[in-house]
Amino acid sequence: MAPLKPSVSLTLFRSGIDTQQEPVIYVRSDSPVCRAEGFRSQSRVRVSTNEQSVIATLCVVNPVSLKENGEWIEHGHAAVSEAAWRMLKLSGDEKAFITHTKTVDSVSYVRGKLYGKPFTKAGLKAIVDDVVAGRYTDIQIAAFVAACTSSNLSVDETVFMTEAMVDVGQRLSWSKQTVLDKHCIGGLPGNRTTPIVVAIVAACGLTIPKTSSRAITSPAGTADTMNALTPVELSLDEIKQVVDKEGGCMVWGGAVNLSPADDLFIRVERALNLDSEGQLVASVISKKLAAGSTHVVVDIPFGATAKMREYSAAQDLKARLEEVGYRLGLTVKCLLTNGDQPVGWGIGPSLEALDILAVLKNEHHAPADLRERALAIAGELLEMGGASAAGQGHTLAEQTLRSGRAWQKFQAICLAQGGLFEPRVGGHCHNILALRPGVLTYINNRFISKLAKLLGAPNAMGAGIRFNVKLGERVEKGDLLLSLYAETKGELAYALEFLDSHPNEVLIEDELV
Amino acid sequence: MAPLKPSVSLTLFRSGIDTQQEPVIYVRSDSPVCRAEGFRSQSRVRVSTNEQSVIATLCVVNPVSLKENGEWIEHGHAAVSEAAWRMLKLSGDEKAFITHTKTVDSVSYVRGKLYGKPFTKAGLKAIVDDVVAGRYTDIQIAAFVAACTSSNLSVDETVFMTEAMVDVGQRLSWSKQTVLDKHCIGGLPGNRTTPIVVAIVAACGLTIPKTSSRAITSPAGTADTMNALTPVELSLDEIKQVVDKEGGCMVWGGAVNLSPADDLFIRVERALNLDSEGQLVASVISKKLAAGSTHVVVDIPFGATAKMREYSAAQDLKARLEEVGYRLGLTVKCLLTNGDQPVGWGIGPSLEALDILAVLKNEHHAPADLRERALAIAGELLEMGGASAAGQGHTLAEQTLRSGRAWQKFQAICLAQGGLFEPRVGGHCHNILALRPGVLTYINNRFISKLAKLLGAPNAMGAGIRFNVKLGERVEKGDLLLSLYAETKGELAYALEFLDSHPNEVLIEDELV
Repeated sequence: MAPLKPSVSLTLFRSGIDTQQEPVIYVRSDSPVCRAEGFRSQSRVRVSTNEQSVIATLCVVNPVSLKENGEWIEHGHAAVSEAAWRMLKLSGDEKAFITHTKTVDSVSYVRGKLYGKPFTKAGLKAIVDDVVAGRYTDIQIAAFVAACTSSNLSVDETVFMTEAMVDVGQRLSWSKQTVLDKHCIGGLPGNRTTPIVVAIVAACGLTIPKTSSRAITSPAGTADTMNALTPVELSLDEIKQVVDKEGGCMVWGGAVNLSPADDLFIRVERALNLDSEGQLVASVISKKLAAGSTHVVVDIPFGATAKMREYSAAQDLKARLEEVGYRLGLTVKCLLTNGDQPVGWGIGPSLEALDILAVLKNEHHAPADLRERALAIAGELLEMGGASAAGQGHTLAEQTLRSGRAWQKFQAICLAQGGLFEPRVGGHCHNILALRPGVLTYINNRFISKLAKLLGAPNAMGAGIRFNVKLGERVEKGDLLLSLYAETKGELAYALEFLDSHPNEVLIEDELV
Repeated sequence: MAPLKPSVSLTLFRSGIDTQQEPVIYVRSDSPVCRAEGFRSQSRVRVSTNEQSVIATLCVVNPVSLKENGEWIEHGHAAVSEAAWRMLKLSGDEKAFITHTKTVDSVSYVRGKLYGKPFTKAGLKAIVDDVVAGRYTDIQIAAFVAACTSSNLSVDETVFMTEAMVDVGQRLSWSKQTVLDKHCIGGLPGNRTTPIVVAIVAACGLTIPKTSSRAITSPAGTADTMNALTPVELSLDEIKQVVDKEGGCMVWGGAVNLSPADDLFIRVERALNLDSEGQLVASVISKKLAAGSTHVVVDIPFGATAKMREYSAAQDLKARLEEVGYRLGLTVKCLLTNGDQPVGWGIGPSLEALDILAVLKNEHHAPADLRERALAIAGELLEMGGASAAGQGHTLAEQTLRSGRAWQKFQAICLAQGGLFEPRVGGHCHNILALRPGVLTYINNRFISKLAKLLGAPNAMGAGIRFNVKLGERVEKGDLLLSLYAETKGELAYALEFLDSHPNEVLIEDELV
């Protein structure tokens, strides 16, 4: 049934409401459009200006007088969410028609899967295309994510899903035959090996164009940490220039639209705390394929507080990543690593950057755990890329780091990206001392992450926490345990108040339990 | 981790935004609360006034200047959705604290089900309680609905679900040993048997306290149609009085909070177009148990355009409804009925009410299909309730109707509910005539429903459509096919414009195909 030609238009204005990726239009309940079309809240409607057209979720607004401002939506007007404002490419108030829209056909594939029918290649392509075009509501994305979890995706389905996710975004290409990459499954604070790995691998003459993400829920993502050292928001052309010149880069992936579907799925998965193995595999492999990589090392930390809690689950994930990669022409090697405690000394962009510099400069106080993790990954990549014989990668990586060549390459890459900054920690510092002698037995990592965020990380790059002691180490009364850094006095005070009200999140006991 | 004592409060005001059941709070992105707590859009937060506290979804709002009004959320203020406004029992601006909240524990049962673990009784109870308390986001409800669909609920799970849904709402009780009820699975326009069935059954001395719903997506629900004849919004006490006096009632169920969980699930199921058999069974049985019924007849129309499209699916549903009912002490009898075309002549509250009156008054032009369907259901109920011997119910129902006793009882019930109204059709009418001779071969029911809604139904009770011809009947050029009724000239014009732009939704052809 063709949509009815609408007769009444509304003037759209920007509400500022951040509904994430879902475009929403807010229409008064007494609007003739609402009444004539029979629209109710959460109807899907087509909003069309002269130039653009999107499918949006309709939200009915009852006219309510705000004290001084009258009503926030005037007669003849409709408000739009930030996503709708962007997708309609609006800059000022503009007239629009609002009409009924047919339901999104590809949702039938989601229903089919829920009723037990495997996804086809065409079905997954249609779903991913519709999700990226903003045609799915959050409710529909949630049903899709649930369907993927409920009858876990087969290898075939995971391959189709990965292909669909690659197809819908940009794809980089490089003139080299071998393009290296790394990825970490995540969940381990301070595990900031990327800049060290890129420097070592590029210093050995191989190509490693690394894109990273910013923090979503953590106090720092790799791109945030790198941003304390160098500009990371480069255009595609600029990235190409850096990689052509230096063999590697360390940039923010958000500036290049590599796997736009992934971000949309991840947001809903996080809200449900669902980890579908198929989704995770498709997410990782699609981003690497889109980045033009041919060989990738994946770091899978496992341990009680890591994302992978059990060895067998980590093994399954390793097998699936390697198989799906193989099917799509990507060589994948997974390293199962210890994920029992945070890596390095610092948490927060600048504090983590200082750890990285200490490793690259071979400084005495450099965190040994961060150094060793980076060497293990770099060693594998050197072997995959043919820079060393099998079994010799770790030695070459260690030599490259110790000789200062990795540090030289790191500086060269930063300069090519626009400069090497000195990381600055926040000017407001507070030291936490041991109140008694004993052994440091417990650190609540989630508490520490929240504390770092209250201090201002990652937006305030100098904010965060620096540990002076590792788990299991003995301290005397008055010894420095950790230091808090903030860029404003208020944030430090706020964090200290929070710390005072939670006395048992960092524990010292007589013996290590 | 205990929530941090908040130090900054915001003044809440009503936004008028209808987010259906999900409480939402709109906070400026530059608010110190947002910044210090690290809140992002779609965080779940606790909103606490001096008196009340709810869990709400946080929506971040970027400050945007509206031309004349400044910003719609002022510094130090936060807007709330209609659901939040209701749940916080606000009447004017009030201060509130916004704090982090822990995740809802029962979501882990949803995850468990998605990973293949059956629901337990305690798990389903916790989920239903949390959903009704507004603790679930739409995304979480969608995952639950998907989980119920994906590995269809077992009989045990359906029983647990039904019990949980009854526990969470009000429950009526009656002094009679046998309390009758009816239900229709829906999907058939004009299938308005309820008032006729209630009148016949109550006229035979049995007890049938019937609650019905208003239209959700259709041009009229049973409660809307009844409202064209009598008041339907009665309190619990008033319902009791009517039933004590007359043995039956025909009221809107929304005024008594019988199965509040059901409405929340149905909204999301509709958005996904998912029909989980387990959910449907739990929905029907829980409402009947909550209404205090002991015996119920369920009408399951099946046919190409009905809700149940296949006989085998209708058979499965019948078996499941009867079994779950039995397990919970409710005698259920299902009738599989023909669902090939709409029932009666009229569509829209008053037009359907006129069909009902014609049947009750034994008028010559009364729609035979509506009459026969009502007699079949009433006959079963009369047998279940012991008013007639097995196999004699239909005869007794027919006698009760033909003798005028059903019509007398109907008038008595309406008077007890507050009066019997004369249904009025809209004053603006337009007749649609056959443009050629032939046989009426096709009516697009969805088109007809939309047309009736554009005419103003169900809010405008006199609006709707009256058919003059049934499918398969022969007409001559110029014969009356159908009449459109509206209460305003504008609505009629709007509907006619729509009709003109869709010439092929009602077809006359040389022969019936």
